[in-house]
Amino acid sequence: MAPIPNIKLSSGYDMPQVGFGLWKVDNAVASDVVYNAIKAGYRLFDGACDYGNEVECGQGVARAIKDGLVKREELFIVSKLWNTFHDGDRVEPIVRKQLADWGLEYFDLYLIHFPVALKYVDPSVRYPPGWQYEGDEVIRSKATIQETWTAFESLVEKKLTKSIGVSNFQAQLIYDLLRYAKIPPATLQIEHHPFLVQQELLNLCKQEGIAVTAYSSFGPASFLEFNMDHAVKLTPLMEDTTIKSIAEKHGKTASQVLLRWATQRGLAVIPKSTSEDRMKANLACTDFDLSEEEIKTISGFNRGIRFNQPSNYFPTELLWIFG
Amino acid sequence: MAPIPNIKLSSGYDMPQVGFGLWKVDNAVASDVVYNAIKAGYRLFDGACDYGNEVECGQGVARAIKDGLVKREELFIVSKLWNTFHDGDRVEPIVRKQLADWGLEYFDLYLIHFPVALKYVDPSVRYPPGWQYEGDEVIRSKATIQETWTAFESLVEKKLTKSIGVSNFQAQLIYDLLRYAKIPPATLQIEHHPFLVQQELLNLCKQEGIAVTAYSSFGPASFLEFNMDHAVKLTPLMEDTTIKSIAEKHGKTASQVLLRWATQRGLAVIPKSTSEDRMKANLACTDFDLSEEEIKTISGFNRGIRFNQPSNYFPTELLWIFG
Repeated sequence: MAPIPNIKLSSGYDMPQVGFGLWKVDNAVASDVVYNAIKAGYRLFDGACDYGNEVECGQGVARAIKDGLVKREELFIVSKLWNTFHDGDRVEPIVRKQLADWGLEYFDLYLIHFPVALKYVDPSVRYPPGWQYEGDEVIRSKATIQETWTAFESLVEKKLTKSIGVSNFQAQLIYDLLRYAKIPPATLQIEHHPFLVQQELLNLCKQEGIAVTAYSSFGPASFLEFNMDHAVKLTPLMEDTTIKSIAEKHGKTASQVLLRWATQRGLAVIPKSTSEDRMKANLACTDFDLSEEEIKTISGFNRGIRFNQPSNYFPTELLWIFG
Repeated sequence: MAPIPNIKLSSGYDMPQVGFGLWKVDNAVASDVVYNAIKAGYRLFDGACDYGNEVECGQGVARAIKDGLVKREELFIVSKLWNTFHDGDRVEPIVRKQLADWGLEYFDLYLIHFPVALKYVDPSVRYPPGWQYEGDEVIRSKATIQETWTAFESLVEKKLTKSIGVSNFQAQLIYDLLRYAKIPPATLQIEHHPFLVQQELLNLCKQEGIAVTAYSSFGPASFLEFNMDHAVKLTPLMEDTTIKSIAEKHGKTASQVLLRWATQRGLAVIPKSTSEDRMKANLACTDFDLSEEEIKTISGFNRGIRFNQPSNYFPTELLWIFG
């Protein structure tokens, strides 16, 4: 297998361009999945408080290190701050808890998961806390993004994370962040697939030296289980005849084509799979090149369709965060 | 003519739902246009530093007051802070200059024109300053939106404006503003027409008690002169057969239908016209009602097409503000 290319972050560190996403990896299998993914060659793991599986993922990492498959410094572990911990004084304690859950001394990258500040929920009460405070209620906190980011910068000073970044941020909030940031965000993680190409946001990040990680690279496939109307109604990208014919031409799978489209556009990708064959296939997505024409064809699928809008998940009128 | 409905702002003041937009009103005719618009019944005038015609618009207002057409307190004068005056200490001086240009003691509403902070240009050097500092260069300032908003709040204390608001802000930046604002924004002014319906942003504003003003209600028509590809290529909304047939059914013009569609959705509108007939027709856009079905049909034109993206006007890679 070709080596995984690295992306040089503004923090000075290298980030693997292909990693493994831990969203929706069941607790029961998470340890084995991470262990097997390391065995298959993955080095970047993209986790989060909200995924609720950091303990198990950490067990997989520990076992892989113990078995000599990999060293800590060869791994690139990403985690994310949940919305209920945006208050400045809540950031460091929760990062320390998350590090303890993983069994790690530092993260390689720590992200603000959403630009949404919610009322603090103590981990002893409920963990992960989710969106709703009690019942259906979503209760906001007054913590500004600047307050949270200032706390993030002190995480770097305290060596609890090597790099810091953001996720699900729109252009205007990134510009505002850049005005007060002493440490600029190293990465932006966003939903990105052929139905949501986000060219202007990518241009902004290129201009500002922010690396971009794509999540949900396969589009609606990640959201079918939520019964979202627009996810269910679209032809799955993997079954699209155009994508399939490009894949056949290169002797690759549709998934590999979708990942290569993103990586050739300069993004990092974090596909998930629990099957060892697909794990390996996803990782081997940078050893061929799509033509300019093919990239353009796939980008032409763009319809500005976003699936990961919180208001798509539950009936609250509070969180139109991508409006 | 039916009286113009008012929208109650969170600041406690009433804002007329139909007003007159001063963007692109030539200096040579601005005084007469404003005078005639007041005569035709307009009470709200939507100006800005960047429109470069505040002196002349003020002359029209002064003449109308002097001739007894209207009293100052019956008018609702809106102006906007340009990007180069975002630094906290630049806000009050420029508002005082703008008030002097208008010949007014206070604005009814003062808006942050764009969430873009650019390097200060002294009015004695160039006014209005525009986007570029010198030549093609766009140079940013480090003024955060919080710094600018804090200065806006002191404008209210000093009675230089009755209400304050924002323009061209995305959802995430509005949420962040609400976290630190002592005075919440009374209004949001946005591009809004059938090709750019922005339903989620409107939902947010409704939830937060922010009144929304639509600009460019006629869609691409406002942007043809900039030779924007996508403005030129679209069928003008005024000539669209669906819009025209709805207009015929009601015995109204296509323009009136487009304005009514917006006002029935709860927005304020600020059409511009230099012809007295069209001025009157635009003002008389709330004395009939579209059916739910017709509103839905017009909303169905939505394609998420935005014309007023700064990067559409000039070749700089810096300003992807809606990315």
